[in-house]
Amino acid sequence: MSSSQIGLIGLGTMGSALALNIAEKGFFISVFNRTAAKTDAFMEEAGKLAERITPAHDLESFVHSLAEPRAIILMVPAGSATDEQIAALRPLLGDDDLIIDAGNANFRDTNRRMAELDQPFLGVGVSGGEEGARHGPAIMGGGKAEHWSRVAPILTAIAAKFEGEACATHLGAEGAGHFVKTVHNGIEYADMQLIAEVYGLMRDGLRLNPAQIAETFATWNEGPLQSYLVEISAKVAGATDTVSGKPMLDVILDAAGQKGTGRWTAIEAQHLGTPIPVIEAAIAARNMSARFEERREVATLFPADDRTIGSDALSLDLLEQALICGKILCYAQGFEMIAGASRAFEWDLNSAAVARNWRAGCIIRSAMLDEMAAAFEDAADRNLMRAPYFAAQIAQTHGALRNVVGLAAASGNPAPALGAALAYLDTMRLASGTANMIQGQRDFFGQHGFVRRDTGESDQHGSW
Amino acid sequence: MSSSQIGLIGLGTMGSALALNIAEKGFFISVFNRTAAKTDAFMEEAGKLAERITPAHDLESFVHSLAEPRAIILMVPAGSATDEQIAALRPLLGDDDLIIDAGNANFRDTNRRMAELDQPFLGVGVSGGEEGARHGPAIMGGGKAEHWSRVAPILTAIAAKFEGEACATHLGAEGAGHFVKTVHNGIEYADMQLIAEVYGLMRDGLRLNPAQIAETFATWNEGPLQSYLVEISAKVAGATDTVSGKPMLDVILDAAGQKGTGRWTAIEAQHLGTPIPVIEAAIAARNMSARFEERREVATLFPADDRTIGSDALSLDLLEQALICGKILCYAQGFEMIAGASRAFEWDLNSAAVARNWRAGCIIRSAMLDEMAAAFEDAADRNLMRAPYFAAQIAQTHGALRNVVGLAAASGNPAPALGAALAYLDTMRLASGTANMIQGQRDFFGQHGFVRRDTGESDQHGSW
Repeated sequence: MSSSQIGLIGLGTMGSALALNIAEKGFFISVFNRTAAKTDAFMEEAGKLAERITPAHDLESFVHSLAEPRAIILMVPAGSATDEQIAALRPLLGDDDLIIDAGNANFRDTNRRMAELDQPFLGVGVSGGEEGARHGPAIMGGGKAEHWSRVAPILTAIAAKFEGEACATHLGAEGAGHFVKTVHNGIEYADMQLIAEVYGLMRDGLRLNPAQIAETFATWNEGPLQSYLVEISAKVAGATDTVSGKPMLDVILDAAGQKGTGRWTAIEAQHLGTPIPVIEAAIAARNMSARFEERREVATLFPADDRTIGSDALSLDLLEQALICGKILCYAQGFEMIAGASRAFEWDLNSAAVARNWRAGCIIRSAMLDEMAAAFEDAADRNLMRAPYFAAQIAQTHGALRNVVGLAAASGNPAPALGAALAYLDTMRLASGTANMIQGQRDFFGQHGFVRRDTGESDQHGSW
Repeated sequence: MSSSQIGLIGLGTMGSALALNIAEKGFFISVFNRTAAKTDAFMEEAGKLAERITPAHDLESFVHSLAEPRAIILMVPAGSATDEQIAALRPLLGDDDLIIDAGNANFRDTNRRMAELDQPFLGVGVSGGEEGARHGPAIMGGGKAEHWSRVAPILTAIAAKFEGEACATHLGAEGAGHFVKTVHNGIEYADMQLIAEVYGLMRDGLRLNPAQIAETFATWNEGPLQSYLVEISAKVAGATDTVSGKPMLDVILDAAGQKGTGRWTAIEAQHLGTPIPVIEAAIAARNMSARFEERREVATLFPADDRTIGSDALSLDLLEQALICGKILCYAQGFEMIAGASRAFEWDLNSAAVARNWRAGCIIRSAMLDEMAAAFEDAADRNLMRAPYFAAQIAQTHGALRNVVGLAAASGNPAPALGAALAYLDTMRLASGTANMIQGQRDFFGQHGFVRRDTGESDQHGSW
């Protein structure tokens, strides 16, 4: 029996795709799945690649088929299923065998597992969907550098490449990889919501049809907004339903689901005290979309059937500029969250490395991320808003964002994420904001105290 | 040694005030504080009320001074300090003695303590600041009804009264009381932020001085916005700093603090999947306000020194209408969260009882809460937006909110909470929203599936 270089447990959509990717890159891999039938089906699907794949029908033979010290990728559902798989695996492992959780783990679980287990352990975020896993995902690694080094050749080989550079990076200790993946997912939600709002303004504001909307996104994908999400928005808008012959967008119910990883971003941002209002707006919008029955009730109370905006007021160019501005501000928030976690958890995260890692393979890959990497290489801890390249972009586009938010408000087209982006900019650019009123109230009713603007003294109280 | 009817541990600001309140209402109370000096100082402060107060310098004599079965209020810092106090207390207690945690506990800790302890336990949220605790707070009770009944006479006596009705209510099982207090605090953040935004529009949009702003809030406090927070906003805006002779608002640094309970609201809303974007915007705004040094840097990049809005476009009446609309929508979100928790935790929470409980004593007390109680008595599970009284108010005022959000966007005055309120309304009143684009994207890259609008079939996939 030949020894495989790596093992993978869990042949779901993502696990199967990753295993085939590994085999295709020339590595020998053993695979195991709880239900053996799935393993057999996978081997059939593997075709020619099967010659480098060793299927196992029980955990023991799976473990024994691996070269020592072993490296085993887990691709099982996050949470208790992962804990159970680890518990089943551990008695079979040697002290130096490495477990790599490549599932959608909450980074706090990854922290816990690393602390609990006396076993080499990596937490690895994988983004790119099935297609990415099969042909090149973005891989965000967390754990000890020495453990990462052991599997780096394989992870680098299977990862997406941006101009030859692999999107597989050891980002930091403990659950840093899964944390960065969480922020990635939050940004993904926000990016999608911004696009959906702009789509709504095209559909209901400008009365464009799906084909025109598809064309617009396709055009935008040639410019500063070039990104996977804008690219597929063009494809989604341009697709026709084979059953009804209608545009796909007219067939799909406006109720978005979520697997819950977006909410982790919002929860961790609260713990860190980092404002991410665009991401929060996106999650809230998904939650509201799911309440479609209630929305229909509310619609009868406050009808807004005509939400047209004159094309003299709203142009596609204006929308493009607004989306650029909203997107930059949304990413600024996501990267601020990464900086906040780096300080809070002493992870020494490198925002430039994160941006580089996201340039290919993952769902939020975009041309802009290359500029973001450059901005963070230039100054690691600076809010993206303040980086010269993006500051210039914001200066150029925030007028359009302002305009679009105002038109949306007036016409009744919801734009929560665009609005949150603008409010973020306008709040962050106020040398003198309005929280003096809040501190005054807090001191009035709760003696919470305040800082004096003139002397800088803290714990001051008003004579109310 | 005479037996006290109730005991209280923790003579901080809130604990002292509550103990004096209890004694003043004619009850005999024993008090204990970790540092004896504080107990002595408290007894001096108690004056004539001291005759009904038994001070204890050790926990044993404190416990022994109480009539059995005992009832002991904890007013110690939330978290580990509470756990430690309970651990120290338990060995001294009889099986039937009742612990009442009246601190700022996270309701999940209260759930845990009730499950762990084989001891009668209530989790009680107290709102109203020091003044409220001393003369009548709002008291939100959670735990077993039979335990509540034992101390209801005391809690009812010390609570605030609204038209003779005590704002002390047993709201539900387990940590329901602390949960409702958490939502209260989230609404409090949002209410304060909405006021702060309107203050900013008066100050920077209309160029009103603090005296004019004070007068405006005072006038509004005579109308539909009548509330403690609007009342004190008038007082804060009207106050003069005794040191500098300047208006207090000009002296207080625009950096708001938080004790962290607001973030619990946002975190729990994420767990429940309930959208509370106005509350989230308020928390984000506080976090941004604290970054005042960075804001000054950003201000140099994107200057917005003149944020004037013509008084032909923006009137005080328009601002009042916008604030009314924003406030209703914010409370709608808070109560939706309570309804969501009631379903998720099987607490059978009564939204009308919650609204009644908040009508007096607590920070968010307002005239509007009486109407809200009536709305929920009429239909318990209906979003406040849909209650006829509030639907009529929204219909009347959302045009003003639209107008104000648009003017704020155009002039560069941040209005994140007002904007989030409008976006909530506009999203919830769309029978056909834009999440079809998001579901299309999700199906495109992740095979997540969607529901067909025409047939209602779920788990459908596009032919991309």
